[in-house]
Amino acid sequence: MSHLELDATRAWLSREELDSARERLPILYVDAVPVRVDERGSVVAVGLLLRASDDGDIQRELVSGRVLYHERVRDALLRHLEKDLGPMALPRVPTSPVPFTVAEYFPTPGVTPFHDPRQHAVSLAFVVPVAGDCAPQHDALDLAWLTPDEALAPGVLAEMERGHGVLLRQALGHLGHPV
Amino acid sequence: MSHLELDATRAWLSREELDSARERLPILYVDAVPVRVDERGSVVAVGLLLRASDDGDIQRELVSGRVLYHERVRDALLRHLEKDLGPMALPRVPTSPVPFTVAEYFPTPGVTPFHDPRQHAVSLAFVVPVAGDCAPQHDALDLAWLTPDEALAPGVLAEMERGHGVLLRQALGHLGHPV
Amino acid sequence: MSHLELDATRAWLSREELDSARERLPILYVDAVPVRVDERGSVVAVGLLLRASDDGDIQRELVSGRVLYHERVRDALLRHLEKDLGPMALPRVPTSPVPFTVAEYFPTPGVTPFHDPRQHAVSLAFVVPVAGDCAPQHDALDLAWLTPDEALAPGVLAEMERGHGVLLRQALGHLGHPV
Amino acid sequence: MSHLELDATRAWLSREELDSARERLPILYVDAVPVRVDERGSVVAVGLLLRASDDGDIQRELVSGRVLYHERVRDALLRHLEKDLGPMALPRVPTSPVPFTVAEYFPTPGVTPFHDPRQHAVSLAFVVPVAGDCAPQHDALDLAWLTPDEALAPGVLAEMERGHGVLLRQALGHLGHPV
Repeated sequence: MSHLELDATRAWLSREELDSARERLPILYVDAVPVRVDERGSVVAVGLLLRASDDGDIQRELVSGRVLYHERVRDALLRHLEKDLGPMALPRVPTSPVPFTVAEYFPTPGVTPFHDPRQHAVSLAFVVPVAGDCAPQHDALDLAWLTPDEALAPGVLAEMERGHGVLLRQALGHLGHPV
Repeated sequence: MSHLELDATRAWLSREELDSARERLPILYVDAVPVRVDERGSVVAVGLLLRASDDGDIQRELVSGRVLYHERVRDALLRHLEKDLGPMALPRVPTSPVPFTVAEYFPTPGVTPFHDPRQHAVSLAFVVPVAGDCAPQHDALDLAWLTPDEALAPGVLAEMERGHGVLLRQALGHLGHPV
Repeated sequence: MSHLELDATRAWLSREELDSARERLPILYVDAVPVRVDERGSVVAVGLLLRASDDGDIQRELVSGRVLYHERVRDALLRHLEKDLGPMALPRVPTSPVPFTVAEYFPTPGVTPFHDPRQHAVSLAFVVPVAGDCAPQHDALDLAWLTPDEALAPGVLAEMERGHGVLLRQALGHLGHPV
Repeated sequence: MSHLELDATRAWLSREELDSARERLPILYVDAVPVRVDERGSVVAVGLLLRASDDGDIQRELVSGRVLYHERVRDALLRHLEKDLGPMALPRVPTSPVPFTVAEYFPTPGVTPFHDPRQHAVSLAFVVPVAGDCAPQHDALDLAWLTPDEALAPGVLAEMERGHGVLLRQALGHLGHPV
């Protein structure tokens, strides 16, 4: 859930209008957990974006972003994956519209495991295998590939905000991993 | 997707503001397919609301409505079920946030099987067993319980607008019925 | 995955024949995570069976058992729930045949998170709300209801064998809980 | 559900033993709906195998086969896809073990929409995108790629036995198609 400045220019909604809507309506998002898979479909690595937070700490996050007016959910997913992982990532957008979970980000902490101080966002979350070369874009410093076991280490989760660590664990559980 | 006039009074959003948002953002909805089940969890009947359309025709529809700001998806589901089926319906809201499908209603017909001339709505769709007495509320004329086979008859589907007939079939397929 | 002696008498398969099949074929199972829910469908408690292991330790387990020849999956689920929780448990068997996960129990430890020294069992796992009074049956000492947070405590998981602790966590993740 | 003669040689189970087990136990299967997808993950074609039936009619079927002792479900899926579509098909086996449905094939017609005169088979059904070149193997005459709309035509469904036509429609409904 980032890059909203970039989105806004495409969204037929001024910065002020989006801010206003965010105080009144749940905003539809998509979250993606990028994974590398072997030929049997087993996940061998999970991709986490590294960003510098406002106070200089390193944060890890999943791919995330808003669905625009008149945009299909699968197009939003593809757009945010390409935006964050670069044009050569070759993401395999899921064939089914059914997410592995629906994450409800509340502006008030503690209502759900997910939190977004800016807004009430409801996000359709998908696991997305990527087959190509990933190059972090924009304000991402790097994209780190971790094995599922590495990704589940407490230290990694502690570096993920807004509940992205919970979402990652839920994704790995959905894939059959011990969580 | 009805009763929006009623919703608006609860949504901290004026009629005009909601109309404006609808031209700018996808609006989050929930759809519910009310069902009667036997003790084995098999669906024995599907509940369809009967309404008079603006031009006097009878329309059949599923339970549907908007998710409000700061409202949990499960609370929106419960609220719309109680609003349409009455306070004694005893709906069994699903334990998991995962919908059986995500229906994308576009203002432009033909983009998806789902259409809503008023807005771009993205709806999380659930099958909801109801155990109590249902009494149609507000502008619904009646609630008709049909067997799955009856519900799949072409004549019934022809009476469902906005793609609700497709959603009903997708629900029955998800439940293991031949569609 | 217990009580197989009891099952065998109903299964048109002698003890020896079942043992033989177990060395040759994957055996189909169902696993159930019994839960208490509030009116919004939120899980407030998880039910775990307490049994004495062969060496006298207390083990916690989920409801689990074999699917018989010519038995529907939903009937096997209902049968094992009634067998373990008693005839007044009023389990709400899921309407859909889709499990929240498929647990592959291998006789060789480490192939998957699930292990069964007796056999290769493949289990369809479901979350099942129970609305009535539960009375543990047969060799179960008790049925303990724990909050989701209590159920996720490491001490509880350590008392669950064969990967049932992993299955429980996967179930809670599927329900939207932080795991 | 074909090619069992071939399977048997790999299954550590003689023809007679398999026949015996089939009269006593549900047999675990996997079914796969091969699809072609575009870069957005939308299904553009469904692959159906053409076979000559025993009485000379042309039958269309999905990829289907048994899970062997000590075989992972994902390995069974890959094995049957390669067996039926050839070694260059490059199937993208799903990352999650959760099937889109569980098809219960009964030896008695009419218990479920699925029927197998040889046995009680319970099948985990998956949609599998294939990216490479498909060459029908063994007794398949051809592999026909149909658009989703073509695949839903009544004439096509009439050529599918054992309930495969129902399974195909359930798959397309799961993918968001009108069924």
